Amino acid sequence: MSSDFENGVRKTGIKLYDIAGKSKPSLFKKDYWTGKVMDLSMKNEAFKHEMFRFVDVFPYLTKPESVAQHIQEYFCRPDQDFPKTMRWGLSKVKPDSIAAKMAAKSIGKNISTMGKQFITGETIEEAAKVMLKGRKKDGVAWTVKILKEAVTSTQEEEEFLAKQIELMERYSEIIKEWPALGTGIKGGLDWGFSPQVNISLMASCLYSQYLPKSCAMDYAIDRAKERLRPIYRKAMELSAYVLMDMEHLPARRFTLELFKSINDEPEFRDWPHKGIAYQAYMKDAEPLLAELLDWAKEGRHNFGIRLIKGAFWDEEVVLANLYNYPIPVFTNKYATDASYERCARTVLENHHHVQLKCASHNIRTVAYVIECAKGLKVPDDRLEFQMLHGMAENLREAWKKHNLRLRLYSPVGEIVPGMAYLVRRLLENTSSESFLRQSFADDAAREEMLRDPATLAKENSEPQEDIEASSEYGDKGPFSNEPPVDWDIHNHAAFAVALENLKESFPRKVLPVVNGHPKTIEKKMLSNDPNKPERVVAEVSCADADTVEKAVASAKMVFVDWSATPAEKRADYLFQAAERVRTKRHELAALLVYEGGKNWNESQADVCETVDFLEFYGREMIRINNPRVASELPGESSRLGFIPRGVGAVIAPWNFALPISIGMISAAIVTGNTVVYKPASQTPAIGQAVYDIFDNVDLPKGVLNFVPGPGEEIGDTLVTHKDVAFTVFTGSKDVGLGIIEKSGHTPEGAGQVKNVIAEMGGKNAIIIDSDADIDAAVGPIIQSAFSYMGQKCSAASRLIVLAENYDKFVSRFKSAVETLMFGPAWDPRTDISAVIDAAAKEKIDKYVEIGETEGRLLTRGVEGEGPGFFVRPAVFTDVSPDSRIAQEEIFGPVVCIIKVDDFNQALKVANGTQYALTGGLFSRSPANIERACREFLVGSLYINRGTTGAMMKRHPFGGFRMSGVGSKAMGQDYLPQFMYSRTIVENTFRSGFAPMEGTADG
Amino acid sequence: MSSDFENGVRKTGIKLYDIAGKSKPSLFKKDYWTGKVMDLSMKNEAFKHEMFRFVDVFPYLTKPESVAQHIQEYFCRPDQDFPKTMRWGLSKVKPDSIAAKMAAKSIGKNISTMGKQFITGETIEEAAKVMLKGRKKDGVAWTVKILKEAVTSTQEEEEFLAKQIELMERYSEIIKEWPALGTGIKGGLDWGFSPQVNISLMASCLYSQYLPKSCAMDYAIDRAKERLRPIYRKAMELSAYVLMDMEHLPARRFTLELFKSINDEPEFRDWPHKGIAYQAYMKDAEPLLAELLDWAKEGRHNFGIRLIKGAFWDEEVVLANLYNYPIPVFTNKYATDASYERCARTVLENHHHVQLKCASHNIRTVAYVIECAKGLKVPDDRLEFQMLHGMAENLREAWKKHNLRLRLYSPVGEIVPGMAYLVRRLLENTSSESFLRQSFADDAAREEMLRDPATLAKENSEPQEDIEASSEYGDKGPFSNEPPVDWDIHNHAAFAVALENLKESFPRKVLPVVNGHPKTIEKKMLSNDPNKPERVVAEVSCADADTVEKAVASAKMVFVDWSATPAEKRADYLFQAAERVRTKRHELAALLVYEGGKNWNESQADVCETVDFLEFYGREMIRINNPRVASELPGESSRLGFIPRGVGAVIAPWNFALPISIGMISAAIVTGNTVVYKPASQTPAIGQAVYDIFDNVDLPKGVLNFVPGPGEEIGDTLVTHKDVAFTVFTGSKDVGLGIIEKSGHTPEGAGQVKNVIAEMGGKNAIIIDSDADIDAAVGPIIQSAFSYMGQKCSAASRLIVLAENYDKFVSRFKSAVETLMFGPAWDPRTDISAVIDAAAKEKIDKYVEIGETEGRLLTRGVEGEGPGFFVRPAVFTDVSPDSRIAQEEIFGPVVCIIKVDDFNQALKVANGTQYALTGGLFSRSPANIERACREFLVGSLYINRGTTGAMMKRHPFGGFRMSGVGSKAMGQDYLPQFMYSRTIVENTFRSGFAPMEGTADG
Repeated sequence: MSSDFENGVRKTGIKLYDIAGKSKPSLFKKDYWTGKVMDLSMKNEAFKHEMFRFVDVFPYLTKPESVAQHIQEYFCRPDQDFPKTMRWGLSKVKPDSIAAKMAAKSIGKNISTMGKQFITGETIEEAAKVMLKGRKKDGVAWTVKILKEAVTSTQEEEEFLAKQIELMERYSEIIKEWPALGTGIKGGLDWGFSPQVNISLMASCLYSQYLPKSCAMDYAIDRAKERLRPIYRKAMELSAYVLMDMEHLPARRFTLELFKSINDEPEFRDWPHKGIAYQAYMKDAEPLLAELLDWAKEGRHNFGIRLIKGAFWDEEVVLANLYNYPIPVFTNKYATDASYERCARTVLENHHHVQLKCASHNIRTVAYVIECAKGLKVPDDRLEFQMLHGMAENLREAWKKHNLRLRLYSPVGEIVPGMAYLVRRLLENTSSESFLRQSFADDAAREEMLRDPATLAKENSEPQEDIEASSEYGDKGPFSNEPPVDWDIHNHAAFAVALENLKESFPRKVLPVVNGHPKTIEKKMLSNDPNKPERVVAEVSCADADTVEKAVASAKMVFVDWSATPAEKRADYLFQAAERVRTKRHELAALLVYEGGKNWNESQADVCETVDFLEFYGREMIRINNPRVASELPGESSRLGFIPRGVGAVIAPWNFALPISIGMISAAIVTGNTVVYKPASQTPAIGQAVYDIFDNVDLPKGVLNFVPGPGEEIGDTLVTHKDVAFTVFTGSKDVGLGIIEKSGHTPEGAGQVKNVIAEMGGKNAIIIDSDADIDAAVGPIIQSAFSYMGQKCSAASRLIVLAENYDKFVSRFKSAVETLMFGPAWDPRTDISAVIDAAAKEKIDKYVEIGETEGRLLTRGVEGEGPGFFVRPAVFTDVSPDSRIAQEEIFGPVVCIIKVDDFNQALKVANGTQYALTGGLFSRSPANIERACREFLVGSLYINRGTTGAMMKRHPFGGFRMSGVGSKAMGQDYLPQFMYSRTIVENTFRSGFAPMEGTADG
Repeated sequence: MSSDFENGVRKTGIKLYDIAGKSKPSLFKKDYWTGKVMDLSMKNEAFKHEMFRFVDVFPYLTKPESVAQHIQEYFCRPDQDFPKTMRWGLSKVKPDSIAAKMAAKSIGKNISTMGKQFITGETIEEAAKVMLKGRKKDGVAWTVKILKEAVTSTQEEEEFLAKQIELMERYSEIIKEWPALGTGIKGGLDWGFSPQVNISLMASCLYSQYLPKSCAMDYAIDRAKERLRPIYRKAMELSAYVLMDMEHLPARRFTLELFKSINDEPEFRDWPHKGIAYQAYMKDAEPLLAELLDWAKEGRHNFGIRLIKGAFWDEEVVLANLYNYPIPVFTNKYATDASYERCARTVLENHHHVQLKCASHNIRTVAYVIECAKGLKVPDDRLEFQMLHGMAENLREAWKKHNLRLRLYSPVGEIVPGMAYLVRRLLENTSSESFLRQSFADDAAREEMLRDPATLAKENSEPQEDIEASSEYGDKGPFSNEPPVDWDIHNHAAFAVALENLKESFPRKVLPVVNGHPKTIEKKMLSNDPNKPERVVAEVSCADADTVEKAVASAKMVFVDWSATPAEKRADYLFQAAERVRTKRHELAALLVYEGGKNWNESQADVCETVDFLEFYGREMIRINNPRVASELPGESSRLGFIPRGVGAVIAPWNFALPISIGMISAAIVTGNTVVYKPASQTPAIGQAVYDIFDNVDLPKGVLNFVPGPGEEIGDTLVTHKDVAFTVFTGSKDVGLGIIEKSGHTPEGAGQVKNVIAEMGGKNAIIIDSDADIDAAVGPIIQSAFSYMGQKCSAASRLIVLAENYDKFVSRFKSAVETLMFGPAWDPRTDISAVIDAAAKEKIDKYVEIGETEGRLLTRGVEGEGPGFFVRPAVFTDVSPDSRIAQEEIFGPVVCIIKVDDFNQALKVANGTQYALTGGLFSRSPANIERACREFLVGSLYINRGTTGAMMKRHPFGGFRMSGVGSKAMGQDYLPQFMYSRTIVENTFRSGFAPMEGTADG
């Protein structure tokens, strides 16, 4: 930019500052309760954290004793040292005492006041009073936003649609009496061109399933358009304005495509009163904006762009780190500001097509836009400014005096439940980098605040992403999870092609492979597509006793060399295999669809997990290969190292046929053992693919031997073989206990006692506490219970709901279940498809019958049938904790809901089965979370998230009781159990001399 | 000291410095090979270390290729970066190439030259030439020391005695022709009062068993006097002087008492030509010197004291740290010097009784002694000075010019084997704190070197002992091993009394205890003293099925409360129990003597190990109770914690009835489990003592239940009980495999799969490599094979000896076995007493018979019989590795020796059994040690030390193959197997907010 232009910006900025004067935004006025809380939050990060969490849960608390108790748990814990005033006088009283209840009530009032700070009203009528006042006093226009609640089902979508229509109708009635800004005409357009009725809404509320359906984007957009068309039509009818808000990254493409798609429809093409929000903090904000403008120019569209910096910064950074994709937003505040300015300029340059709605409380940003618009001679009707109600009141005057058209964001809804969302924005905006805070709370120098952010961004360059070379894995670098598939156009198309092509390969010939030699055997077995049983996926030559014997002999023979192969080299085969899996991603996932009956998302997730097993166990071997020091004293060195056990039998399940097979095999071989691998009889072709992955990276012949065939025969021969040192098994409890029992016997001539690592069943419960956030709970619980039709040992099959939350939860859960779509696994829209085979279907059907006698059927999902071995989901309520459906593992889409009176009972029910695999808790009570951590006795306890989808390294996985034996998979304790440990003690003191410093005589 | 005195010292010092002039001791002259090596050693600690080790092994290497190979292993390893000259040109040649052999020979010559630097000759005749030259040229006298080899048997004691007699006789012959110093009289007394024949010797060579017999000190002194009397008599006959050297701390009391005891005999009382060395670096040097002088004054004795600083500094510090007793020596060089000066003054003050032999190369020290003697008017004949031959030649002139009587230490013996000992002293003396090095190699300022060490010691105060509060155990502080019993007069007497008193308590009534209630049962069983079978130690009420059932029920009932007891509190019971064991140390050890048949040392060691188990597992629980972080990212916290399993059966062995019972029980209960404990049927009274220890510290009733009785009945009922979650067993392979098999079955109604932790047998081998230091190997091997009559699972029962070392080793080992004393366990002199019972005796006898057919009997020890169920030790040679005595566990004092040709074969034989518990290697080849670390496949491999006596924390213990299942006891992996692990994942991201820093909008 020229220095003339920059001078202009600075001058305008100074002018705006001058008008704003020394008055502070009300939020920073410490003489009010809200201001005090804000002030404390800015000074004390721990308090801010507790305060926000408390405000988040507060609306759920219907009883004063419950409020008092939460205040105690959030602010009066022994590990906290907040000032006395922040303990609200509740440190030492009982929550149900009169004093506590009174305090709770007064705090409740304060919080309501805080809410009113920035929520205009509970209803449009109430909000209208505020809006009219602002219109008259400050000359501002408004956009109304119905406070969003999470939309989790078709039913809730419908309710949302109705609310928007109702809002526009009632709002239109109201404004009939209002004079329009600029013109004064009653019910007319503000400033002569802008509808007084102006609403904002989020695309995610139009179609609740947009996220799981990201692999079926066209369908998701169609569904959303069904909701959006009535809204647009109503707006056209009432001459109202509709703007689509922008949410977190996973919704961005959906929102943009939805906006373009509906506006390409002739009905809406020429209607100008529509807009979309656009986030400048995305690193790719500029190219995507260019695309949007190209579309606008090409289609001669005319719409508004609310340019914002973005309000999901924390979430974007957190999720990118958790799921290991590049951080999509600028992590440098100045870079965001600079991106905003460049985007604003682009929008202004295209003012023939798009109107800029500059939403910012930053004086520099606004001054830039003013100067830029001036330079580009942008007409009045192509630029407006926006701010949030309740914030930066001191700037309104400045904007007004500068003749800027200002629109305020008017959140409407119940004050208390809606407030949490706004408090979040507020807390974000009170962060140390906030312009308002810096300018009006911290009194930063104006000149500094008005500098060109592009220059500042260079001076404060983007911090490098956190890829420190971790020493724990040597040169190999740290482990990071394989990022989940991004269903962009490229991946979507590639997978569709893979699905189509793979069919050509059926039926596949699956042969046993011993010491690298495939062997055709007369006895055959077939595997079929569960969703189309007439499709034969594989024809298997079943390994016989002789083949198994030879496989063990082969494994025993090569053990000598393999166990002596350096650990780094063994690990390298795993890293190569991981690369192979990445390359074959879509082909492998397609095979999981056809033979395993997994849908698009589940099959791709399995591939990612497969890569993770290989990358993680390879690294783990490198880590533990370095002997651990037991003591290192002058005169003695003592170290602990590992050696492999010998030949291992790997007996794999069908439900995670690819990742768990790879996990068990790779752990066994990377630790130096050799393996005889038996895939599940339902998934032999996936088994063959597993073998091929290792074969393709030239794993030495015989290290891995492949014996497909019927379970009992091969399994028994293998497990009891004298030369099989250990068995790794994942599967049912009954088979597992059988293996354990048989392995207890040490056969004549065996070289060791047999070891068994077994992952067995689960009857996993999720507790939904009285104060659980149901918005946040429904989605993960649906996923935990019904993804892959509940055919996961980690699946949730018991929901234990506290009475206080019972009705709320059950009705929303029912709707959500009834939103799940039935279909074949290869259809990207499908949530629920066929279970693995006829026997599974029969078993599940039988349990549904039992459930009908033991409890009350809540729902069996949406109407309709599914393909192949399909079973409709079933949810039962009024189930006794001791009933069979609440005790026995069903391994299907069957859930029972158990109502409990208090948390004690919830824990008792949760712990009351013979299994102990996974468990979940949704709660916002620090005390109950703490108690569950102690007393909810399962292998993996998940708090405020689902119980499935354990991630490598971060979520070591495995149960106890009847759920399994052995140390946890996916974690750092897994590999050692495949080895024997050795202590090596060396006396380093020889003839009175040891390596050490210092001596005496002279 | 007055400043006048200090001025005198300084002046004298300066004078001595002046005379010494600028010439360097020959060792620091870099134009010689030795000087170069010294120089490099001073500059490069790693080189010094390798060099010393190489010089230590060099004499053993009889073939040039072997020398070349060792040079490569010590100096040419890839991990080393010594300068080229230090690789001796051998980096890249084959050890058996001509070039390599030639290089090896030349290095050999250099090393011989180095040896000649300070060894006066291989024989007394050869040495005499050097001594005569010194006598004539420098006017110095000499004391001759036959280079010491370790004395490991009665036979070697006799050889040593003969050598001393021969030395004095031949030396006397030689000096007949020599003029005495000072007088010139041929064969006369030097300076008119000092015998020309003067020898030095070590007490440890007089009685090889002084160390194991430290509990029978009177006996050890009697035995040593038998050797010393002939030497004294010969000296008196020849008018020679005999001085007893001082060795490491364990020999000090023995040496002092021996010296006093023999000189209290009328025959030697008045003979003046005797002396003893005394070490000033001991922290208690002054009080003990006062005691010695009191004895001298009281008995009107007259003798010499060679005052030295001390040459075992490294060893004293290392051993004190390894065995956890206070460091006995000053760790501050100045404090040692100051102590020397105070001791010297004390000796000089008592010159009527003692003559000072001031042995020092330190000018300050000598100047101090000169000034001090001057002040005290010490007559000439009461003071002489000493130095080592080959060191500080430049000072001799100074001493001479100062008219000091100087005697040099004259080591005589084979140059090469003796050299290692001297190189050690040399290396110590070339340490950075050495006076000679500082003065003549580093050119330190004289004034500084001459300052009063008492002042310097204060300025450089003693560093604190290394008791950093380790955070891993929180407030409890670091774990340290219980120091071994110090057999001082107090402990000796206390234990003798305990042994006497305990007999009164026999027969003890042993009753089962369930939930705190003892129960008398009709069916009885007795335990007897193996060394006196007619002595009934205990009469046991045998637990019946009903008792066992009730015990399990009791354990199950209290599990609820006990598992919820905080880990710190559970750990605290262990710490209290440890204190109880310490208090009852002698009573408990006495019970082990009578019921377990352990001797004095073994029984006391068991008590120490018992304390260690309690202190260590208690701390370990505190450590692992802190959940481990699996990941801590913004938005997610994932931790790993533990919970107890339930009721455990502890089935204990008789051989370590106290420590292993306590170890298994304390691990089970500290982790939150409850226990039913069955002691071995041979040791019920010890079992009862175990119960009482916990009962005495008020462990809640029912946490530990006690069911003595016959093994099979009780064991089976316990192990297969549905409510027993795990079994911890130590005992035989057959019983162990039975338990494992029975535990494989999961009974109807069981709450979990059973877990078994089993320590079973061993058939442990020690490899004695071609270059093994036999001096250092014999003692530990005898201990490993025969302590507690080999009734340890860790005992060595196979000795695999490389052909090159075979004859040397076998003959010395045979002598050592024949030195072991038979007797009842309660006699402190006893090495070998009865085995545990008649069945054990029968089994061992049977194996000895088998051995006589399979191999050649080398020895059955000394003549004579032992008490009770006694079996004489048996050693077989010419044993095939596959024979029964080389394959089957005998659990008695039976050893077979297997000769092998090379290291490959040694490893093959070592690994060639079904067991894999302990193993040992004596070797000085870095490559073979490295190979054994990789390829010698046992649970605990011990290098250059014995295979028994594993120490808590430092030597985690446990085997694989048929030796056991479960993770290693005594180490940090032991406790987790008593628990289930849980992953606790919390989604900390709520409504878009997570505890983290930084945000965006503004």
